[in-house]
Amino acid sequence: MSASAGDTLRVLPLGGLGEIGKNMTVVEYDGAIVIVDTGLMFPTADMLGIDLVLPDFDYLRDRADDVEAIVITHGHEDHIGALPYVVREIFPDDPPPVYAAPLTAEMARSKLEEHKLDEVVDVIERDTLEPWEAGPFTLELLHVSHSIPDACAVVIGTELGTMMITGDYKFDQTPVDGQPTDMSRLAELGQDGLLLLCGDSTNADRQGIAPSESSIGPHLEEAFGRCDGRILVTSFASNIHRIQQVIDAAAVHGRKISLIGRSMRRNFAIGRKLGHIFVDDGMVIKPKEIDDFPDDEIVVICTGSQGEPLSALRRMANNDHGQITLHSGDTVIFSASPVPGNERAVNETIDRLFHIGATVITNQDAPIHASGHGYADELKLMLNLTKPRYVMPVHGDFKRLRLHAALAEDVGVDPGDIFQLENGLPLEIDSLGARVGERVKSGMIFVDGLEVGDVEDVALRDRRMLSNDGVFIVVATVSEQSGESVSDPEVIFRGVPFLDEEHDMIDELRDVVEMSIEDLSRKVKNSEGIAESELREKLHNDVARFVYERTKRRPMVLPVVVEV
Amino acid sequence: MSASAGDTLRVLPLGGLGEIGKNMTVVEYDGAIVIVDTGLMFPTADMLGIDLVLPDFDYLRDRADDVEAIVITHGHEDHIGALPYVVREIFPDDPPPVYAAPLTAEMARSKLEEHKLDEVVDVIERDTLEPWEAGPFTLELLHVSHSIPDACAVVIGTELGTMMITGDYKFDQTPVDGQPTDMSRLAELGQDGLLLLCGDSTNADRQGIAPSESSIGPHLEEAFGRCDGRILVTSFASNIHRIQQVIDAAAVHGRKISLIGRSMRRNFAIGRKLGHIFVDDGMVIKPKEIDDFPDDEIVVICTGSQGEPLSALRRMANNDHGQITLHSGDTVIFSASPVPGNERAVNETIDRLFHIGATVITNQDAPIHASGHGYADELKLMLNLTKPRYVMPVHGDFKRLRLHAALAEDVGVDPGDIFQLENGLPLEIDSLGARVGERVKSGMIFVDGLEVGDVEDVALRDRRMLSNDGVFIVVATVSEQSGESVSDPEVIFRGVPFLDEEHDMIDELRDVVEMSIEDLSRKVKNSEGIAESELREKLHNDVARFVYERTKRRPMVLPVVVEV
Repeated sequence: MSASAGDTLRVLPLGGLGEIGKNMTVVEYDGAIVIVDTGLMFPTADMLGIDLVLPDFDYLRDRADDVEAIVITHGHEDHIGALPYVVREIFPDDPPPVYAAPLTAEMARSKLEEHKLDEVVDVIERDTLEPWEAGPFTLELLHVSHSIPDACAVVIGTELGTMMITGDYKFDQTPVDGQPTDMSRLAELGQDGLLLLCGDSTNADRQGIAPSESSIGPHLEEAFGRCDGRILVTSFASNIHRIQQVIDAAAVHGRKISLIGRSMRRNFAIGRKLGHIFVDDGMVIKPKEIDDFPDDEIVVICTGSQGEPLSALRRMANNDHGQITLHSGDTVIFSASPVPGNERAVNETIDRLFHIGATVITNQDAPIHASGHGYADELKLMLNLTKPRYVMPVHGDFKRLRLHAALAEDVGVDPGDIFQLENGLPLEIDSLGARVGERVKSGMIFVDGLEVGDVEDVALRDRRMLSNDGVFIVVATVSEQSGESVSDPEVIFRGVPFLDEEHDMIDELRDVVEMSIEDLSRKVKNSEGIAESELREKLHNDVARFVYERTKRRPMVLPVVVEV
Repeated sequence: MSASAGDTLRVLPLGGLGEIGKNMTVVEYDGAIVIVDTGLMFPTADMLGIDLVLPDFDYLRDRADDVEAIVITHGHEDHIGALPYVVREIFPDDPPPVYAAPLTAEMARSKLEEHKLDEVVDVIERDTLEPWEAGPFTLELLHVSHSIPDACAVVIGTELGTMMITGDYKFDQTPVDGQPTDMSRLAELGQDGLLLLCGDSTNADRQGIAPSESSIGPHLEEAFGRCDGRILVTSFASNIHRIQQVIDAAAVHGRKISLIGRSMRRNFAIGRKLGHIFVDDGMVIKPKEIDDFPDDEIVVICTGSQGEPLSALRRMANNDHGQITLHSGDTVIFSASPVPGNERAVNETIDRLFHIGATVITNQDAPIHASGHGYADELKLMLNLTKPRYVMPVHGDFKRLRLHAALAEDVGVDPGDIFQLENGLPLEIDSLGARVGERVKSGMIFVDGLEVGDVEDVALRDRRMLSNDGVFIVVATVSEQSGESVSDPEVIFRGVPFLDEEHDMIDELRDVVEMSIEDLSRKVKNSEGIAESELREKLHNDVARFVYERTKRRPMVLPVVVEV
């Protein structure tokens, strides 16, 4: 092939670099685009009132027609969650097909349905080892083990060479479903020579290899054996193999299982339907039947492993769950680790359970959780199997991207061929080599209610101000002619502690308003002229100064001037 | 002594049980009171805009005259921080003396001075092993090792027997100052038979014993040896022995030290003044002199180990510190662990440092931090040394109180003599035995600006609503006679993303207001009468419904009716 602009393979991360979450990568070749993953992130505490955080995919707006395919590696929110928003915002009319393995496809359809987009989008199931064409790309799913079934890496072939985005993976040699990461295919790709590897960095900071998922079962079984009362196990609802192992441990001890929490019930149903969960019908009881059995015949599987405020377990811990009341003798098993940032919520939940009198077993007490992300030695194994020419660590904060890069160096990749990038910085590869391309707009967009949009700094700054110090609203009614006050000023406040309507300060505040108006109306009489905006500004400043002097706080002050 | 009401020893925890922080205990005997510690807590993210959290000490209001002494065990905020507020609220005129060891007394004075209370309160230094009388109590400070110098347990003697509140402690056998916890005196107390032990439970969940503070120095020295560029060490500013060890490690490697951060500089000065910190004058340089030295001759000691937003290190990580700009080659050493709840802030700081190109070393990479709280085996050692009749675990969430109680059982204390209490639940001991007394009001009070008060649920709920969804203010000006609208309604909003003045929704909202007014004014014409409150309510409901339908959010709606 001759040298032309179409020769450049461009890999543009829009999310997942310098952060954990909202993974999304745009791959371009010969004017065509494949999107790999459309993930979201959950807002941090300072993103007041924001529902979800999406990658800024504005770059795609002008390129919508060039997108040949969206490929989703697996069904976790940080890989699939933004799909309906990407479809709605970028492809309202004619979206490209969405490709995924069966379970992931089922989850994609369910998400699109929630947003009434299931009729619009063609979600196509693909099996591994069965490549297909999409524009100038040959696409292929490659089976990897992870904490959800049907997880895949994406192999992207172009005339220039073959690249792979690993998605989330570990090299579990004894996975619950007996299907380890497809090392033969990885080795084959390595023999042919992989042009670029974009690899998961989540656990680059952990030495050795992650424990096998199947090592959890015996520990759960052992823990169950020490319990005399009811057992509650909380885990990620999508960790279907974990749920299977809880079921198996319950069966060994002759206990029934009951599922509590919407997402737990939904994933259990999907898992059964797709043949990932096996359980005798007689073993599953409804939550309302729990009290019909002795305590030592019950295992409840529930949501809430992250201390989520409205989750089943959190409500139980608060003695506020309609279906189950915890008591001394119950044992709650956290078969999950807190996601960074959730530590406080998880600890609060645990402490409330202790207060009720329940026993709590966490990953610190027994090895009852295994990460779905490979550790440092697995990352090196991936590099050695696939022998990439270029390496671009993805899925990680800057620390983990750096550590992953160091691992690549350790296994012999030339430092000049390792690219530590950022969201919005594309890697460009052609026959001459690889380099960092020009920066593209990237960042976060927010979902707030029905709306999706750019970060509105003003609105968030206002929310922060309102939440820190509350708000004062003063309404002045003045004569259009004279500028004089024609009725008593109104003072309304919200979010101001230790203050009520009867407080002296409110009377004084009305006086401040009256005086502000008087000052300005004198000007009017002197024919200096007066504008409503001038009065508003003066009111704002006078009231803000008075409130700060009296409270040492700076609530938002909103003056309203009504002219009659 | 004959049996009388004065015979009961009453130990009332007002803070520190079922939580980590705001430690405060009230000890009563024969109508007199000693307060041990007056600590505070930092607000959690959901306490919007609250500055500090104090124990609810309302119980003391009617008993102010009975308080013979306030004893502070050590200078950490969770033991000393509420002192100015307790003085101001409970003893505005005639406060009892405050007793403490020298460093703690210095810190107490400095706090009281900040609140202009230093003239009002008599802060009296006490040495250990020198008991003094306070009403019916014999009080004594007992030296313990902890992560701040001059930490003490408080021994309280009454005619009924002797009790001890440990404060925070560990059994460091090789403390930096060569003064281990006073085991001889503890053993002596045990020989005489301690009536009650109130013991720190903070690390009841950790097995074995805490590493010695002096084990940190060699690891710091070793880490320094691997650094070619500048070294920054962040730690708790009050951990004066840690600062000494950083200084010693710097000296070994021929590096100067410079202190950045207000509390770091203040504690360094106090530590030097009181003879806890030893350093050659020539070794200490000013922050602005840092650039005058080669990178490999610099150690910066700074605040920010918890990722605090305004701390020196956080600002450096944000490239926003006036005095120092970090660059590749710098090494930042976190000689501290994140306090639960601070994990995200610490991780964010670390990741920004990685992004700048700095190397970061934390407690996970090398043993460069030691907890100041004894582990399970130290708690057992304390129990075995002091041989208490009754045990009351303090300083801990419910989990740790429970684990501490289990440790007491392990060493042979009768389960019936171990009391797992809560804030507000007093333990009452007399010659007949011990029992839980009647519950007393307890909980949190908030500091918000200049004000201190009970939890104002309404204000916090309002702040939460404002911060989640923002606020709409609609102002309707109506004729007093006809109830008809006499000027265009005003619509103001704040904290509402994706909305501006030009938005169609604002026009429609004005129409909604006009229609509301019209609806009601028709009533007026029909002589059904109308109240301003009726119009306000109708406006609120109509506007809230419209906004929810359009945005699926529920911002606060504040209607204002101006009658002219």
